[in-house]
This record gives sequence, structure tokens and C-alpha cells, in this order.
Amino acid sequence: MNILDSLQDFHDLGKLNEEELNALCGELRDKILNVTLKNGGHLSASLGVVELTVALLRAFNPDRDKLIFDVGHQSYAYKILTKRKDSFATLRQKGGIAGFSRLNESPYDFFTTGHSSTSISAALGYAKARDLCKQDYESVAIIGDGALLNGVAFEALNSVDNLKTKVIIVLNDNKMSINPRIGGMAKHLAELATNQTYVKLKNAIKSQCRSMENGECIRDRISGIKSRLKSLLLPMNVFEDMNISYWGPFDGHNVSELESVFNLAKIYDESVLIHVVTKKGKGFEQTEKYASFFHGIGPGTDINDAEKPSCGTPGWSGVMADTLCKMAEKDDKIVVCTAAMKDGTKLGKFSKLYPGRFFDVGIAEEHALVYAAGLAAAGMKPVVCIYSTFLQRAADQIVHDVALQRLPVLLGIDRAGLVGEDGETHHGLLDISWLRAVPEMTIAVPRDAEDLKFFVSEWSKRKIPMAVRYPRGKASISTVSDGKTREIAEWGRSEILRNGRKVCLIGAGSTVDLMLKAACEIEKRTSISVTVVDLRFVKPLDEEGLDRIFLTHKVIITAEENGLVGGWGEAIAAYKELKGYYDTKIASVGVPDKFISHASRQEQWQMCGLTAENIADIAAKLL
Amino acid sequence: MNILDSLQDFHDLGKLNEEELNALCGELRDKILNVTLKNGGHLSASLGVVELTVALLRAFNPDRDKLIFDVGHQSYAYKILTKRKDSFATLRQKGGIAGFSRLNESPYDFFTTGHSSTSISAALGYAKARDLCKQDYESVAIIGDGALLNGVAFEALNSVDNLKTKVIIVLNDNKMSINPRIGGMAKHLAELATNQTYVKLKNAIKSQCRSMENGECIRDRISGIKSRLKSLLLPMNVFEDMNISYWGPFDGHNVSELESVFNLAKIYDESVLIHVVTKKGKGFEQTEKYASFFHGIGPGTDINDAEKPSCGTPGWSGVMADTLCKMAEKDDKIVVCTAAMKDGTKLGKFSKLYPGRFFDVGIAEEHALVYAAGLAAAGMKPVVCIYSTFLQRAADQIVHDVALQRLPVLLGIDRAGLVGEDGETHHGLLDISWLRAVPEMTIAVPRDAEDLKFFVSEWSKRKIPMAVRYPRGKASISTVSDGKTREIAEWGRSEILRNGRKVCLIGAGSTVDLMLKAACEIEKRTSISVTVVDLRFVKPLDEEGLDRIFLTHKVIITAEENGLVGGWGEAIAAYKELKGYYDTKIASVGVPDKFISHASRQEQWQMCGLTAENIADIAAKLL
Repeated sequence: MNILDSLQDFHDLGKLNEEELNALCGELRDKILNVTLKNGGHLSASLGVVELTVALLRAFNPDRDKLIFDVGHQSYAYKILTKRKDSFATLRQKGGIAGFSRLNESPYDFFTTGHSSTSISAALGYAKARDLCKQDYESVAIIGDGALLNGVAFEALNSVDNLKTKVIIVLNDNKMSINPRIGGMAKHLAELATNQTYVKLKNAIKSQCRSMENGECIRDRISGIKSRLKSLLLPMNVFEDMNISYWGPFDGHNVSELESVFNLAKIYDESVLIHVVTKKGKGFEQTEKYASFFHGIGPGTDINDAEKPSCGTPGWSGVMADTLCKMAEKDDKIVVCTAAMKDGTKLGKFSKLYPGRFFDVGIAEEHALVYAAGLAAAGMKPVVCIYSTFLQRAADQIVHDVALQRLPVLLGIDRAGLVGEDGETHHGLLDISWLRAVPEMTIAVPRDAEDLKFFVSEWSKRKIPMAVRYPRGKASISTVSDGKTREIAEWGRSEILRNGRKVCLIGAGSTVDLMLKAACEIEKRTSISVTVVDLRFVKPLDEEGLDRIFLTHKVIITAEENGLVGGWGEAIAAYKELKGYYDTKIASVGVPDKFISHASRQEQWQMCGLTAENIADIAAKLL
Repeated sequence: MNILDSLQDFHDLGKLNEEELNALCGELRDKILNVTLKNGGHLSASLGVVELTVALLRAFNPDRDKLIFDVGHQSYAYKILTKRKDSFATLRQKGGIAGFSRLNESPYDFFTTGHSSTSISAALGYAKARDLCKQDYESVAIIGDGALLNGVAFEALNSVDNLKTKVIIVLNDNKMSINPRIGGMAKHLAELATNQTYVKLKNAIKSQCRSMENGECIRDRISGIKSRLKSLLLPMNVFEDMNISYWGPFDGHNVSELESVFNLAKIYDESVLIHVVTKKGKGFEQTEKYASFFHGIGPGTDINDAEKPSCGTPGWSGVMADTLCKMAEKDDKIVVCTAAMKDGTKLGKFSKLYPGRFFDVGIAEEHALVYAAGLAAAGMKPVVCIYSTFLQRAADQIVHDVALQRLPVLLGIDRAGLVGEDGETHHGLLDISWLRAVPEMTIAVPRDAEDLKFFVSEWSKRKIPMAVRYPRGKASISTVSDGKTREIAEWGRSEILRNGRKVCLIGAGSTVDLMLKAACEIEKRTSISVTVVDLRFVKPLDEEGLDRIFLTHKVIITAEENGLVGGWGEAIAAYKELKGYYDTKIASVGVPDKFISHASRQEQWQMCGLTAENIADIAAKLL
């Protein structure tokens, strides 16, 4: 029997000797690798923190101490060791273990995560509540170096001194966020990681840790060590500048060293940042070599897939990226920004072709948008490719910096709609509801690659604040099959894809295909021929097109891959009242007003009633 | 003739000698004081940067150089000197000069501002565009120490090194943001401001500046100075840690010193941060003594008002603050957070009564929300009092950190609706549209103080994610006049304020009074008695109440102080379709889909058709 099987949970970790701990780490890596290759998930980050997790669970006790993993995609080993060993095989499957930390999944997940850089703020909240309620536990944030560079984390760091409470911040430095990390701070961290003076400090702390039995005078003694070291020209660093004690760097793959340091941090009476250096993808040749490839993988990935050429229909991201490459060739005002999602948004090729016109600003969505607005104010045409869920982080900047100034920034909103296995933290279900409320915005939703190209190319001529939204997955190259480029409808207009009477189904983007299928289903069940319209523009609405639909149909059904609340189904209901089309009934299908858990995207569509059958049922009721 | 009158604009500043410059600064202060006392506006910040502005306009030329004032509320002297001397008397009035920088107001306003901390990102955008287009101008951000502590500014600072362009960042350090500044970084800035080693560096730079005619070797020579100083134990600072050259601190009220430094920065070939120390409210005894009071003042303020007791009906902020004080007395789980708006949200009293349970985290809205979520996850009941417009900065955190975890955080959304003279950057017109789309949120809109108290008290029992929204201005204490506490309607229910037939007017919060007036207007014109309903809950809607209204009325008119797009008017139109109430017509009044410029709040209500006459006209058309 191997060691992992022999353990009940983290309570048993204290019984293991160093050799057994090393063996356990290997077994944890095997389990993580096997399940993640099969189910898909975030592999590299989780492989990198196996020793760190074991050390945390030996030094801290999550029955009382609060451990908060930033983003949470690196918490697989933690999940396995906190009573989810057997259910871990269901990772990211419907009804199974989530791919991120979930407050409602386990009493050991203390905060739901998914978007980066929240852990320090949350840990501060726990710490302050502990002080106020006179409780006794440690509050620990485990945050990566990429996440640390986001504004929220900085605001939290700046708040540590002021809030007068104690948190332990473990900086998991793997020298990249998702792609290699970015910015002036990154250089600073790299300097710290190789600084010999700090290594001396580290050794001093370690020797203290071994020799001391109680913590009463620990702070004075560490201060003493530090002032002695300062006289040896100890450089200050950004954390010390913010009045947070800095310890490190430590080897993130040495369980006993880490455990010693964490034990010392427990008895230290102030907040401390512990700098730990780990290797992303640690443990396997392929995952170490291709850590970025294995950051997030789909179900059924093979360990050798990183070296195989990718094939098949390009996804929406790829179509967008290719479009931008082509446009940039003819128009030197086109520049492209992304926030740590170069790979996800397939902008690698663009960055190679136009390195001076490509900006990855790191996990800094707010800055990305204002920077783009600045570029636009100065005459450029910036395109920001960003996942819908992360665009939520820059919601104010879209209003205040882009739309209000009417600046020609194009948002390429990727992963808009249901995202499948990443679950409720990662859906892009708010972009339409939120952007629709912003004056001056144009929102276009392409159903295929042809329309996407048309929208981007027209934006470049019209120079307006605009969003083009597209979902996860493959893009239809064209809806005509004879290989010719299809005719493109006019700017601002919806498009009638089939003419019928009485019932009109309106889709946009990913729901156009659904509506074509639903039309067949309705016609199969009844004798009524059905109109199908591709809305194309969510804002402004094609009022002329809608007028024609209202005047000639008794029933309109809308379907959108967005929240129903605030979606364009509501917009059309409101338009009906505005124009007084009282004889037409409207029904809307879309994502209901609740958070949708992880499952396959297909399962999620079904859960939301985004099916031809459901739409046909609704039509039957209204006719 | 005084000096200001004798100047055409900033082009003439070069002709003035030191004595004349000093006199000019005095005249600028008088003009700013007089107009701002009369019209209302942001006085303290603008008084603090008069010399800084004059020095900027002597060293830089805004015909080519781009000067971006962060927030823009300190740009009054800049506006006067950039061809807006005569129109300055119209400050913040309808059709007049805006209280912040506005791209569309003048070719010298390079970026629209209002929300803090965007200037560095925007300046980086201008700088990069300059490089790409091979143009030649300086890009300068002028940012306060409070604004610098926000996450966006940090993301931008971190980006400076990476973007490989040159910006000049002028840190205007007045030792407070709006209230005294907060956090570990603030201490660090204070240390820098008094550091003698930097003073030596400053003197070295100044002597260089006098002796050098061309800039070719300036960088090497400054590096030389710095490495010599480093050997004298020059401490690093957070900016140098991020690879940004730091010069300072300099006296922000010494025009010639600042001019010399800015001239040096022009010929320096790398990005530099220039630390300037100014006094907020500088120039008048009262404004210096009460700089926070004079941060933002209303029209018709007297210079001695800071010392007079405030009187009159309490505003909504005060009612909320009093409610929290009372609740906190009975419930020690209640804690309150704000983001640099202690005065604006009237939380001074709470902070004195419960200093350990009050957290002003500075201009850090994102952190404020996640910190509150952390507190809530640990069992507390945090209330975040925040202006609607600034809550946009934390939109993602409401979704991802509060609602998704179903945590009992209460948002006290202040200044929700039209805000009057601050204009388009400061309206709170999106909170309903955005929050409505977030699952698990409850949104309540009190029409008077009684309902506000009820909502807050019920929230504390129910422990749900919830928002209570209230506008700028006075709160009705109660809608009954006999002095008794009125009966409160049930949780989750709308309330019928008067019974009629055929026409039902639905208001919420500030529009309830409007609807009562409109009902009288309609009854005056026709013989139809009109129902008036206070919606109270925007989410979830009171479906039973709505069912009754739909079944008994032919016409529903809604009015909301929020954008019409995505507002609750649309929600009711969608509900009609969902339930098939096809016999009732709906019309909605609210803020149209455009940005509303500065004017009085009353003028803005008229511009939006939020008048009894308009509502009566609409009713007449639909009947």
C-alpha cells in the first residue's frame, strides 16, 4: 500500500518521516497528473506547489487555521489532503470536485476563488474578524507572483500595516503568472530571489527556528538579526517599504525547510511575507518543459501533446487573432493589448509579427483598459483581447475611460457565455447586461468568422467604442458551404436567415445555430414555417429590422448565451412597449438568474434550456 | 491691471519674473476661491497646486506636450491658464466649464477624468503612441499621493519599465487623499519626504540642471551621482524597486525650483517620478486649516462655513450612518468599511464610536469589497458605504467575492442617481442595471429614512448579499406627518401608496415623490384616479404585487433614477411577457442612454423627463 492510500487526511501528515514525505509528494503528483490529463484542468500550478502544500498542512491546521489559495487552481494537492482524496477523480465534472476553491464544497475551502489576487484581502478579513471576536487562528494567503502584480493585491498589501492585524502571506514565486511575468516588480522579485544578503537572513531565521522553543522574544531577535544584516548593506525591498516583514527566499520544494519557516511565522507576532521559489509544472519532464502549455488543459490530454502540432478548426480566439494580424499589416495604427492571456487569446503570432505593437500588461485588466484609452486618445486603434469574466475587473474603465470619451477601443471579448468545466467563477454571462447599460457602446455578436472580420474591419473605419463578443470553442468559418465568401449584411442590421410567418426566432452569435435547429423542430411539430433572424447587433438594436419582425409575427422567441436579466431579450421586450407592438408575444431563453456550476458546456446549455426542444415547447405554448 | 488679466494664456508665462509669478499665483488663488465658493467645487486640491501648475506650464508646452491631471479636480488653475480664464466663472454650471478634465471641453484637456488613478496608464498610452508614430512630445501624469495608492496606479507603475517608453510622473504629495492618506505606502512616502539623502540627490540634480546645456550625457551623470550617493547608503524606495527613477522631494510651492526640475526631466531620457510636496488648501487661513471640509463644497459656501455647526434635515448619508451607529450598539458583528469617503458618507461619528470596527482602506474599492467578503466569511456583518459611481470600480468583486459566496455584505450605495454639478463622471446610473444582473443579490431602494432603517435591520437578520441605494441630498424622514413612526410594509413587498384604477405609476426611492405628484397631475387633467406604488425591492421583484397591478390596470408607468437600459423598467416589461399580461401597456421614464453633463440635479431631472408633466403626457398618450 502506498503512502497516500494509507493516510486518512492531513491529520496524519505529522506521522511521516522525510523519506515518506518525499514519496507522498511523488504520489500526489501522479494522482494530480492522471486525473488532470483525463478530466482537464490546471496542471502546472498544482504540480508546482505539492511540497508547499504538504508543508502548510504540517505547520498549520485547517480545522482552525484559514488557508486561502489565490485563484485556487493550484489547490489540487490541498483538496486531496483535506478529505477529498476519493472524490478527486470527479474533478471539474458535473456534480464533482471544482477546479478552484469553493466555500460551499468543503469546510476546508475558506474562500471561493477563480479570479486572481483576492487572497490577501480575504485573509485580512479573516484576521480582523479573529481579532474582533477574540478567536485564535492563523490567516494565511498563498499567492503567486503573477497574481501579486494585480492592483487588488497591491491595495491589500498597502492595507496590511494600517489594519493592525496579523496575516501570513506566502508568495509562491514560480517566475511566471500564466505566461512569464511582466513588469518592474517582476525584476525586483528576481533580484530578491537571488540576493545573497537575504539568503543570510534566511539562514539566520532557520537557525533561530531550530534553537528557540518559545516565541516571546522572537520578534526582537529577528529584528536584531535584521539590523545586524542591515549594517551589512541589507537592501530594502518593496514589502519592507510597505512595512511588511519579508522573509526569504526559500526553496519551495523542501518540505522541512518550509515547515520550519511556517512554524516560525506562527509564533512571530506581526504580519510577514514569506517568499518561496517553486518550479511550475514540477515533477515531470514534459510539464516542466511546457509549463505554459500545461497551465490549463482540456479533457483527454496526452502528456506528449505539447510537442504535437495543433490541428482542427480554429477556435474563435484564433479567428480574432488572425483577423488582427491581417489588419495590422495594412493599418499601422492597430495595436493589441492583453492582460496575461496571450496564449489563451492566441495572440502569440501577433506578438511575433508586431512585437512593438503588442502589449501584455500582466494580470492588470484595469490598467490594460485605461492604457488602451490613452493610446486611442493619442490616435491609435487599440484592440483589447480579454476573457469576458476578467473584463468584469475593468467594468468601470469601459464606462469612465473608454465610452465616456468615445474613444476607438475595440474589446475582443473572448470566452463570452458558458465556459464549461471552469464553472461559476469563469462564465462570461454579464458582459452583455453590463455593456448594454453603457452609453456610446456598440456591441456586435458574430455568428461566424466572416461576420467577425467584418465587424473588426468596420470598427477600424468608424473609430467608435465597441465590443465584439465570441464564446469558447470553435468558430463556424462560414454559414455557406460552397467555399465562397458569403455576402455580409449591412453594418447595424440584423440578418434574416430564413423567412417564415407567425413565429420569429432571434439568435445572436452562438445561439444562431440553435435557432436554426429549433426552427426545424417547430416545423416538424406544426405546419407553421418559422423565421430565423441573426440579431448581430445587441447595441444599438436594429430598430427597422425589429419593426418588420413585430409587424409580421405573432410570436418572437429570443435566445442568448448571457444572463437573462439585463440581456437583449429584455431589451426587445422593452422595445415592444416603447413602440407599442402589443399584438406580438415575446419569450426569452438564456441563462437563468443563478450561478451555474462546473459541467461540460453542453450540459450547461441543457441546464439553461438552450435546446431546440425547449424552444419548440415554448413556441407551442404561445401559439 | 493685475497680472492674470494681462496674460492671454500660458504662452505669456515665460515673460514673467519671479515676483510677478508669485503675484500671479495669488491672483489665481483669489479667482479659484471666489468662483468655487460661489459655484461649488473642489477647492482644497486646486489651491494646493497653483505653483505646480504654473511651473508645469512654463516647462512644458501643452500645444504639444500632454499634461494629464489625475482625477482632474485640481485642474482649475490649469483651466484658467489654458484659454478658459473668462469662462471659468461658469464652473460646474449647465453649459459651463466642467469641474474635472474633459477631453471634449478643450484641446488642452487630454483625457477625461473624475475617478482617480488613471493618469499614469493614460500617460503611458500617449507616450507609446508618440513612440510608434515617431512624434515628439512629453507625456506627463500629475497624480496625488492618495490616488497613487489605488490598484490601477500601481498596475501602471509596474508597467512603466516593461512598456519601454518615457513618461514623467509628478507625484503631488499633500499627505492626504481626501481624508488623511492610509496604508503602509503612506508611511513610506512620509519617510521619503524627509529623507536627507534624497535632499542631497535633489541638490545634485538642481546643480546639474543649472550647469548643463544639452542632455546627451545627463543620464550617465545622474547615474554617477546616484551611485556615489548609494555608497553613502542611499536607501532604495518602492519606485526604484520598480525600476522607475525617483527624484525628490521638492517644494511644491517654489515655481522656479519645480521649473528647473521639470526642464531636467524633459532632457532625461528615461521615465522619472518627481516627488513634489504641496499643502492642500494652500493660501487662505480657513482652507489650510479645514482642507478636508473644503475638498468639495456646494454652491454658495462661505469661507467661514467650516466653523459653523451644520444644520437642517440630515442627508441620506447621515441617515445611513446614524442607522449603523444604532445597530452597531446592539450587534457587535456589525463593522463598516469605506474607501476614502469617510466624510462624504458621514461616517465620522461611527469611526469615533467604534474605531476598531471602522475601516477606511483608502481609494481601494476593489480591496474594500474583498476585505468585506473576508470579514463576512469569518462571521462578521460588514457594511460597505460607497458612492455608486465608485462602486463601478469593484463591480467584479460584488459578483465574484460577495454574491457567488452568498456572503452577508451590505452595500450602502450613496449618491445613486444623478449627482448634479460633478457631471458625467460621477453619476450613479449603472448600479441597478449592473447589480440586477448579478444572481443572489437583493436590491432595496428606500423612499424615506424609515424604510432605510427597516432594510438595514432586516439584512442583519437575514444575512444575505444586499444593496441599499439612496441618492444625493436630503432624505424624507417619514411620509406620514403626524410625528408617529409609520407602519412599514413587509420585507420583499412593494407598497401601494394610493389606490386608483386603469393607471398605475410605479416609483422607487427618489421617484416615489415624483409619482405622487404625477398622479395629481393626471387626475387634474382627466377623471381617472391613479394608483401609485413604491416598488421598494428592485430585486427580487415583488411578483405577487406586480400580478395584482397587471390584473387591475391598463397602463403602468415606471420612473427610475437610473439608466433606462437595464433598469427595473425593463425588468417589468420582461415580467409582463413572462407572465403573459398582454392587456397592460407599459411606459418607462428614466435616464436616457447617453452621458448627462454637469448641471444642477434639478436641471438634470428635467433633461431626463423625470417630471410630473412628462409622466402625465405619457399617460394621456397610452390611455
